[in-house]
Amino acid sequence: MGETATAQGLAEQLVRSRALIPTGAQGVYGHGEDFSFAIEGLSRAINRLFGRQAERMRFPPVTPRADLERIGYFRNFPHLLGTVHCFCGDERTHRDLVKTHDAGGDWTGAQAASDLVLTPASCYPVYPAMAARGVVPEQGYTVQVQSHCFRREPSTDLARMQSFQMHEFVRIGSPEQAWAFREEWTERGRDFFAALRLSAELEAANDPFFGRAAGVMGQGQRQQQLKYELKVAINDAAATTACMSFNAHLDHFGKALELRTPDGEAAHTACVGFGLERIALALFRWHGVDPAAWPSDVFDLLDG
Amino acid sequence: MGETATAQGLAEQLVRSRALIPTGAQGVYGHGEDFSFAIEGLSRAINRLFGRQAERMRFPPVTPRADLERIGYFRNFPHLLGTVHCFCGDERTHRDLVKTHDAGGDWTGAQAASDLVLTPASCYPVYPAMAARGVVPEQGYTVQVQSHCFRREPSTDLARMQSFQMHEFVRIGSPEQAWAFREEWTERGRDFFAALRLSAELEAANDPFFGRAAGVMGQGQRQQQLKYELKVAINDAAATTACMSFNAHLDHFGKALELRTPDGEAAHTACVGFGLERIALALFRWHGVDPAAWPSDVFDLLDG
Repeated sequence: MGETATAQGLAEQLVRSRALIPTGAQGVYGHGEDFSFAIEGLSRAINRLFGRQAERMRFPPVTPRADLERIGYFRNFPHLLGTVHCFCGDERTHRDLVKTHDAGGDWTGAQAASDLVLTPASCYPVYPAMAARGVVPEQGYTVQVQSHCFRREPSTDLARMQSFQMHEFVRIGSPEQAWAFREEWTERGRDFFAALRLSAELEAANDPFFGRAAGVMGQGQRQQQLKYELKVAINDAAATTACMSFNAHLDHFGKALELRTPDGEAAHTACVGFGLERIALALFRWHGVDPAAWPSDVFDLLDG
Repeated sequence: MGETATAQGLAEQLVRSRALIPTGAQGVYGHGEDFSFAIEGLSRAINRLFGRQAERMRFPPVTPRADLERIGYFRNFPHLLGTVHCFCGDERTHRDLVKTHDAGGDWTGAQAASDLVLTPASCYPVYPAMAARGVVPEQGYTVQVQSHCFRREPSTDLARMQSFQMHEFVRIGSPEQAWAFREEWTERGRDFFAALRLSAELEAANDPFFGRAAGVMGQGQRQQQLKYELKVAINDAAATTACMSFNAHLDHFGKALELRTPDGEAAHTACVGFGLERIALALFRWHGVDPAAWPSDVFDLLDG
């Protein structure tokens, strides 16, 4: 199958066909008919193929700030976190705010941080929810979850959206259970991309840590082989984009949230994530901008 | 069909059956198997019954702040708006922030307002998207849209969530087209609730404006019959909750966003919204906490 569009060409074509609807904010797009078909089709296909033995959870796009503080997200990724602020003032404050706005000023000074942040990854709300159930049972937990995620990285790159949807499978249990889950999934992931007729490469990876410590921390992750990604060419053949990730967290969440196994140890966790918008973009890039013209097995997989 | 639970009892039962997953933040719940079934089933049923002649759009839970400023949302509903803030500092600022947090202080002082806010209603992103297309065609537009919405009203009342999903149908066109659409939909809405075997009452209503002007503005809306709601008993039989709303905006959005009809006039708009979580709560309240035991026609409608 040949490449059907260049990176710039793809964005233009998807906007022209109304698959993507620019909002004026970088990395924030509405989905029209064709993009909705791809996203909803992917979500349904993932559920159908892999969802049966996993407990289904869905979380809203906002989550308690206290949970992300316990997990330490703002230590490692302060640059990516969106916090939700709100107006707590009275009528007088409000009159001032409107005056400031009407004079062309910044009216957001009266906004105060709420107890909520935007969810940065679908799996984050799962760990506190499971910790609230008490000791993790012997067989552990397997959960499937999907939510809208937010990462503050404004970009004109279609494949780097600020607001996007991630479908994840999460394993919580013993070190062996968590590690085995991550290993099994790398095979499943390859098979899924083969079914979508997308050429994907598995690569070792690391998270985008903040600041000078980033290099050391990223290297640590790579040495311990904690993160792999399935990468697909979306923008150009040379620079591939991660469309799925396979993550071993060791006991990071177990310790932070006092999530324990029956032997009293901190539980180990692992997760695998499907980046729905990125997979959809890869489909449009490689199979063309009209889903009705996609290879029939791919179309049927999404239309089922 | 008898009432199956008191308000307090319903919350307890839905948490016990893991249909709802408390997050610790008021009005922010995860959805387990049964609640996901109801929400996804309602969305599919609405699409199947009413979606065919409407252009499908889906927007993320964040939207440009500039659009809500043009629409004037922060003038009328400052208390409900969530703004998205982020960290723009350097490593030194970050070290200070972590120190402040670890000393038990408020570390959010370094967060600055971004260009994004949380979407307060599913239809808001539709108007700027359509304005970007130029003059509204003679036949107008009919759009169906669903998104996660946010309104800052922390509450222990299950039926008043801060983060919730709204499915909407939106009409943009002449004054006659917009008004007729709103009128037709009040009948369709009643039929939908009858199909769900829920007893619903149509009532005149008004938006929850901020401050002292609220009374006057609300009365104006009622006098002009701009807003109706279909209300269902969720918490108790006396105090019903709006599960659908039918709104005529006159030329409010048309003027604010320079959305014009071929005669050069500001377009009129109308929208009807389904509050998915509230309708799901009503189903659990009146048909019981186990969807498998719901009346078979209701179950089939959602399972289709």
